[in-house]
Amino acid sequence: MARSETPPSVRVRRAPERAAYDPQTVHAVLDAGFVCHLGVVRRGRAVVIPTLYARDGERLLLHGSPAMGAFRDMRQGPEVCVTVTHVDGIVLARSVFHHSINYRSVVVHGTAERIEGEAAVTEALRILVEHIAPGQWGSAREPNAGELRKTEVWALPITAASAKLRAGGPKDEPDDYARPVWAGVLPLRLAPGALIPDDAMTEQLSPPAHLLNLAGESG
Amino acid sequence: MARSETPPSVRVRRAPERAAYDPQTVHAVLDAGFVCHLGVVRRGRAVVIPTLYARDGERLLLHGSPAMGAFRDMRQGPEVCVTVTHVDGIVLARSVFHHSINYRSVVVHGTAERIEGEAAVTEALRILVEHIAPGQWGSAREPNAGELRKTEVWALPITAASAKLRAGGPKDEPDDYARPVWAGVLPLRLAPGALIPDDAMTEQLSPPAHLLNLAGESG
Repeated sequence: MARSETPPSVRVRRAPERAAYDPQTVHAVLDAGFVCHLGVVRRGRAVVIPTLYARDGERLLLHGSPAMGAFRDMRQGPEVCVTVTHVDGIVLARSVFHHSINYRSVVVHGTAERIEGEAAVTEALRILVEHIAPGQWGSAREPNAGELRKTEVWALPITAASAKLRAGGPKDEPDDYARPVWAGVLPLRLAPGALIPDDAMTEQLSPPAHLLNLAGESG
Repeated sequence: MARSETPPSVRVRRAPERAAYDPQTVHAVLDAGFVCHLGVVRRGRAVVIPTLYARDGERLLLHGSPAMGAFRDMRQGPEVCVTVTHVDGIVLARSVFHHSINYRSVVVHGTAERIEGEAAVTEALRILVEHIAPGQWGSAREPNAGELRKTEVWALPITAASAKLRAGGPKDEPDDYARPVWAGVLPLRLAPGALIPDDAMTEQLSPPAHLLNLAGESG
């Protein structure tokens, strides 16, 4: 979506120089994560819960159980806000005021629609699993009809979306640069650790290549 | 807060065995992070934005700019929902259906109140900075009156709060344990990288001990 087409309700008001509306930026931020914060209105109040998502082209797939409160709310009023945030670092400035966070975030507003039908739900689950842990769909047992009934997937169009990003070092007041204060960035990232095998494995299995890859280990 | 005192609006409905309401658990989850998702209602719709927070006893301090849209909304209707989520791992099961995420999250509902007055805002900023980057308050220049006017801090009581946690390995269907599928957990954590010095430092300064500590490096 070109900036000129961005609906006013989506426009970032605070620090607009950090905002972006182009699909490349929005998609890149969305594709870098798999946990979003889903906001709905319940009896006039905002309710925000974490849930799993994946991008499927121009829509977000949101995953949960039919018993999940936010999904029950969405059956009444499917207008939602989905926010994805990656924390990339702590910006250490020479003044307290200019301390900041490096981050990438996307806010998507829209009306979600429940995905119906065994084939469509199965395909949505495949996209979700392959986004979160690529290779697992071909490795683990596929969902059966009973399991599909216990799963709910909603689709939210990514048309009203904005990204906000901050990167790089501190921006201090001119007078503060002479201060003998160390300044810079502490980078942060959601990093994988070593795979932990389940005690209940009945055979001595080695992790498959796609999981070693996810863990950043060589096979 | 004992479970029996938990207001019904706060009770976790989905997977209640993963829920906790005791202050120790709630505080531990809150203290482990510094970016929350703040939900407000704007013209009948939920708006969710990431912002910085710290716990100060029985309240959450929420930090932002006076220009931040959500804070402007809060001046009209200060009922908010704040959600904090830590992603601890991907649970790799023998079936797609039992794939899951290990996580710790807290949802706080309540009415936020703006912190007013130079001394109170300064103290709130000190708590925020010392939570996010302990040691920086004594190292960087403290905020002046003009900077304090450009900062907004809100306090939200942590009385209506619930935690939800999942840890450990996959829980598969009995028939699936014999499958030759590797099962276990890929742990994830927000990990620090090596400190990146700002190019504009006018002197050759070494990072102070409190920052090396934050980065997990020895001095």
